[in-house]
Formats: sequence, C-alpha cells, structure tokens
Amino acid sequence: MSGALPSGLRRAIELFSRLPGVGDKTAARFAMHLLSGDRALARALGEALLDLDAAVVTCERCGYFADASEGRATCAICADPRRDDRVLCVVARVQDLLGFERSGAMRGRYFVLHKLLSPLDGVSPADLPMQALVARVADGVEEVIVATPPTVDGEATALYLARELRPSGARVTRLASGVPHGGDLEFADQITLGRALEGRRAIE
Amino acid sequence: MSGALPSGLRRAIELFSRLPGVGDKTAARFAMHLLSGDRALARALGEALLDLDAAVVTCERCGYFADASEGRATCAICADPRRDDRVLCVVARVQDLLGFERSGAMRGRYFVLHKLLSPLDGVSPADLPMQALVARVADGVEEVIVATPPTVDGEATALYLARELRPSGARVTRLASGVPHGGDLEFADQITLGRALEGRRAIE
Repeated sequence: MSGALPSGLRRAIELFSRLPGVGDKTAARFAMHLLSGDRALARALGEALLDLDAAVVTCERCGYFADASEGRATCAICADPRRDDRVLCVVARVQDLLGFERSGAMRGRYFVLHKLLSPLDGVSPADLPMQALVARVADGVEEVIVATPPTVDGEATALYLARELRPSGARVTRLASGVPHGGDLEFADQITLGRALEGRRAIE
Repeated sequence: MSGALPSGLRRAIELFSRLPGVGDKTAARFAMHLLSGDRALARALGEALLDLDAAVVTCERCGYFADASEGRATCAICADPRRDDRVLCVVARVQDLLGFERSGAMRGRYFVLHKLLSPLDGVSPADLPMQALVARVADGVEEVIVATPPTVDGEATALYLARELRPSGARVTRLASGVPHGGDLEFADQITLGRALEGRRAIE
C-alpha cells in the first residue's frame, strides 16, 4: 500500500511520527490534513519550523529559551529585574518551568537540567550540567528548590543534586509530596498517602 | 506567562495547534521536543512540509495524490494497468482510499470527493466535484460503489450521488452496513443492529 504514497508524503509522515506521542496513523492524518485541506498551513508550519531553530536559542544562564530574533542570549525570566535572585528553582524540563510560571507561585529564578539521571536511558551524573549549576548557585543563591518530578529518576536526581550542592552552603529544598488539590483520598495510591502523612503540617 | 515565550516558539505552537486533534498543550509539547531534544528534526520537518506542497499534487483523474517529483499528473493507482476500469469506488477522503488499499479488497479505481454534503458546514451540492465525477463514470464505468461513511452527511451524499448518476446507466451500489467483524452484539447500537438485520444474507 505504502508504495502508492508519493515519496514527499511518505517523508512528511515519517517525520511527523517522530514527534512525541504521534504514531503512524496520527502522522498520516496530519499530512492528509495539510494536503487535502490546508496547504497554506503546510507552508506556514514549514517556515516556522525552519525559523524555530534559528530564532530560539537556549538561555546561557538558565537553560530556558531566549528570543534570538531580539538579539538576546538570556531569556525574559533571567532578564526580569523583579525576580528574587536568592531563590533558584531547578526543573527537569522547560514544560515544568512553564507550569510554575502559570501557577504564579514562583518568584525566583530557574535552572533547567533538560534531563534526569536515568540508568535505563544511559544518563549518568556526567551528563548533567553540574558545572553550570554550581557556578549559578555560587552567584548569590540562598535556596535551591529541587523541583524534579516525584518519579524514581526525579528522586534520584534530587538526591544527587542535594549532595553535590552541599559545599555551596545554599539551602537545598524539595517540593512537598502529598495528595493533589481536589484529589480523592479513596483513589490515592499508597506511596502518595504515605508521603502525605509523613509531611503533615500543623493547622495554624 | 505566554509573554515569556519567544515569539518564534509561540508561532510554532500556534501553527501546530491547527493540526487536527492537536490542542495547545500537545502543540507546546511538539515544539518543546523539537527545541530541547531534536533540532535536526525541526529542520527536516520544516523542509519536508515546504516540499510537501510542491512535491505532491492532486491526481487530475481521481483526486488522490500524485508524485510531482516524478513529473506525474496522475496517481500510481490511476496509472496501474492491472486495475479494473469498470468499477469505481467513490470515497470522501484520501484516508478512506488508503483503508481500502490496506484491505486489498478493492481492485477497481477510485474517485475522492474531498468533502461530503453538510448543511451545517455549508457544503452544498454545488461544492461537490459532480462534473468531474460524471465525466469519469462516462468513461467505461459499469459500477459505482459509493463508499461514503455511514453518517448523516455520508448517507445524504450517497443518496445525492445515486440520483445524479442515474442517467449514466452505471449500477450505483452502497457499502454493506452491519455489525463490524469481531464486534460485540451486546454493545452494538440499535441503528447498526437494525441495518444488520435488514441486510441479512442466506448462509450458503
């Protein structure tokens, strides 16, 4: 069957299917939509993706994204003078940073690791940007909030970071773990309930 | 928050979210994946999409896709001499054509409407490629299998096509409707069960 597909179409489907969570069928649906319905979108998206690599650079200070089209090497968050320089929130992924930004609860700066320790995926301590993080913490940071996810890899990374940052003298904290807001205790798993008990706080 | 996103990134997310079934969060995940992990994929996909519009043209005979990079104006299926010219299968979308090709059960030719009659979406009979279809049927077709989907719009389109094609003298047939292979009768809806009864056949 696939022999009947024009080669340009086959290639677009193959590349679409390399996006996260996109299988062959979804990739084909994307390509068909562009060809049958919206060829202008194909051109616009093509240009935007070619532009993406050039226009968006990794912030040299925190690992988030900076707007190269405005000639910046540091991101809007690092450039914001109203942020608290004493608090540094370390996240695994840019998406996590954006989650904190949406919450509005984080007034400090960020540092994006872009990866977590993972023996299965072959990510060892040497693959983490430790030198940059240590230098960043030495620059007046008093508290490092390790906001890696509450998974095996996330916890291992948090423990490793805490140990490596001990000589810096900064306080290293971890996100609270417990039942989520609006969650149902009946359906919470045992580890989550155990942590929620462990981390219980006095009602003031 | 979105003010903190570089403009090139915002634009890529906005365009990704115009793909079928892709919301803002998925679009952001695609863009983040390209930026954080696979910038080569961003460039390759960008080039493939720019190429797609030029390399893939609509087959002038059936509405499927032809490979313009090979200088063709008709598709591989129309060009295949082993196909039965007397049977024409009319489908709504290219995806439906590919489904029939996967099944291997269709040995005739195809005609892709690219749309269905839909009062709600403002698609009227004048929007269907009737002139091209009538001319196609006049070219030696003995049976037209109307394989539009078993939905309200699909059924309305099938009835309309049958009426318009009556003067051609070709036999106009419709796909059988009934319980799907491997389906559970207990969970079949009443219309499907009714049609399965209506269309029952003698066991030979």
